[in-house]
Amino acid sequence: MTTREEIHRVAAGRSLGPGPVALAVDVGGTGMKAVLFDSAGRFVDAITAPTPECTDTAAGEVVDVVADFRARFATAHPAHPIAEAAVVLPGIVDEATGTGVFSANLGWRDVPFAAILSERLGVPVTVSHDVRSAGRAEFAFAEAMPDNAAMVTIGTGIAAAIMVEGTLVSAGGFAGEVGFTEVTVDVADGVFRGPIEHIASAASIAKRYTARSRRDVSGSLGVLEAMHDGDPIAAAVFAEAVDALGAMCAQLVAVVAPEVIVFGGGLSSADELLDGVDAALRSRLDFHRAPHIRRAGLGPVAGLIGAGLLTRGHA
Amino acid sequence: MTTREEIHRVAAGRSLGPGPVALAVDVGGTGMKAVLFDSAGRFVDAITAPTPECTDTAAGEVVDVVADFRARFATAHPAHPIAEAAVVLPGIVDEATGTGVFSANLGWRDVPFAAILSERLGVPVTVSHDVRSAGRAEFAFAEAMPDNAAMVTIGTGIAAAIMVEGTLVSAGGFAGEVGFTEVTVDVADGVFRGPIEHIASAASIAKRYTARSRRDVSGSLGVLEAMHDGDPIAAAVFAEAVDALGAMCAQLVAVVAPEVIVFGGGLSSADELLDGVDAALRSRLDFHRAPHIRRAGLGPVAGLIGAGLLTRGHA
Repeated sequence: MTTREEIHRVAAGRSLGPGPVALAVDVGGTGMKAVLFDSAGRFVDAITAPTPECTDTAAGEVVDVVADFRARFATAHPAHPIAEAAVVLPGIVDEATGTGVFSANLGWRDVPFAAILSERLGVPVTVSHDVRSAGRAEFAFAEAMPDNAAMVTIGTGIAAAIMVEGTLVSAGGFAGEVGFTEVTVDVADGVFRGPIEHIASAASIAKRYTARSRRDVSGSLGVLEAMHDGDPIAAAVFAEAVDALGAMCAQLVAVVAPEVIVFGGGLSSADELLDGVDAALRSRLDFHRAPHIRRAGLGPVAGLIGAGLLTRGHA
Repeated sequence: MTTREEIHRVAAGRSLGPGPVALAVDVGGTGMKAVLFDSAGRFVDAITAPTPECTDTAAGEVVDVVADFRARFATAHPAHPIAEAAVVLPGIVDEATGTGVFSANLGWRDVPFAAILSERLGVPVTVSHDVRSAGRAEFAFAEAMPDNAAMVTIGTGIAAAIMVEGTLVSAGGFAGEVGFTEVTVDVADGVFRGPIEHIASAASIAKRYTARSRRDVSGSLGVLEAMHDGDPIAAAVFAEAVDALGAMCAQLVAVVAPEVIVFGGGLSSADELLDGVDAALRSRLDFHRAPHIRRAGLGPVAGLIGAGLLTRGHA
């Protein structure tokens, strides 16, 4: 889980720009994190907490934690009274109505988070999707980002933030849910044909390696390490995931033609991932324009910074 | 080829709304067509001509035909002096710079059509892509079109016009070039894995039927007719194309989540196409939102009407 220190390290180096004193909250599958930004848009403080178990579809426990974050910042930093808040959520999130439409992991359905939290905190609250929020931050802080770009986050699942002609696409919260798209790639034992998440998510990479090698490693980064140590099974599993990601990127290119695709998530630290996806993608393109493949720069703090940007008029 | 009468029948029923007297031109692979709209946005007259052979990459012959259209309208309708023009082109078209980037069929490369034609005609000229222009018209004249929609045109090739949060996506001209995306579908003799155009374009449907039945029919509509007459091979070829289109639509849904997908091209007249794609798409969706599958309403005149709309401030 991201620590307070890690948040500080990334967020303290950047300013959101002037605006209201803001509370930014990122609700993750296992942990929640919050940052207080001052009126100059500078980092003041961070808090983390485990994500509470939601006992029904209304997510009241999550609302309580956000209210508690706010109270703790109010006590600790009376000179910075919170005037606005932004909260990013997992699952299907409709930014236009401020609704958490659906979260498979946390169990909520159609929760009007923006309205509930605005009422509870007494300040304007906007909500956004975690992956889109990370994209917002990466696109805003990257150098020379074109108007058509995508950010693919590889974690337990796979999802994308898609920027089209300068606008982050939400489409009622359903855009960028690319994890379930079918890809077909050649693999060691024949042909894989199924959802990209079943071959290229961090969880699937670890699982496929263990199934084939009968060895357990610590997640997808363990597979990466085994590959670096010369393990041919690890290399094959990784190469198959990379090929599948190239196939998925080719779909992205055909539909919205991003000029840049940014990769986030732990695996994106590997040069092999970026170079491999680039090659796998180019091998699938015809007259299409090949996007540049880049690594995300803000790590697990991106969603939180993207939330902060919402309080500065970014959409 | 579309006739003057057909253009009249479709265009005469609709008004673009008030604006400059406008020349709208659609440059097709085999034919060019032009409409004169008056200052109320009403249809005045239409002309068609074969698309000239382009002898180099500069497309000077196409420019000549557009200039000739303009001269003929000027002679025939002196009461309606053309004040603006819009031209839609096939291939890769960059609307932002007014450039015909590339046309495989007509051979041009990086032709600054907007600049050349503005100079030649002495009026402002905008250019657009044929499929996006058809989408612009279908989206504008359809009832209750949501802000996120797509139009898929099945012709010799397959391409899509994609509207995201109310904006038609161009991305330098490379958006919506979905014809080359790989799909994998079960077919009579095993598994098809390849570009969607090789199984579901009108040309491919006819070709696949002939290859399997050893019978020649008049294009994809002939296959449709054979299917209606109970030919099982025609039914299988059609069903495989429809399944592939469902797979392609699932990719569109995962990336940009349209609420409506409109189908254009001759085959879209078949209820079996619309119903079949709907079923094939739904079978591939998980938590994603299933779009409504609709038939296009403007036929081969859509691109021309979309060009006219460009002179009325539509983007």
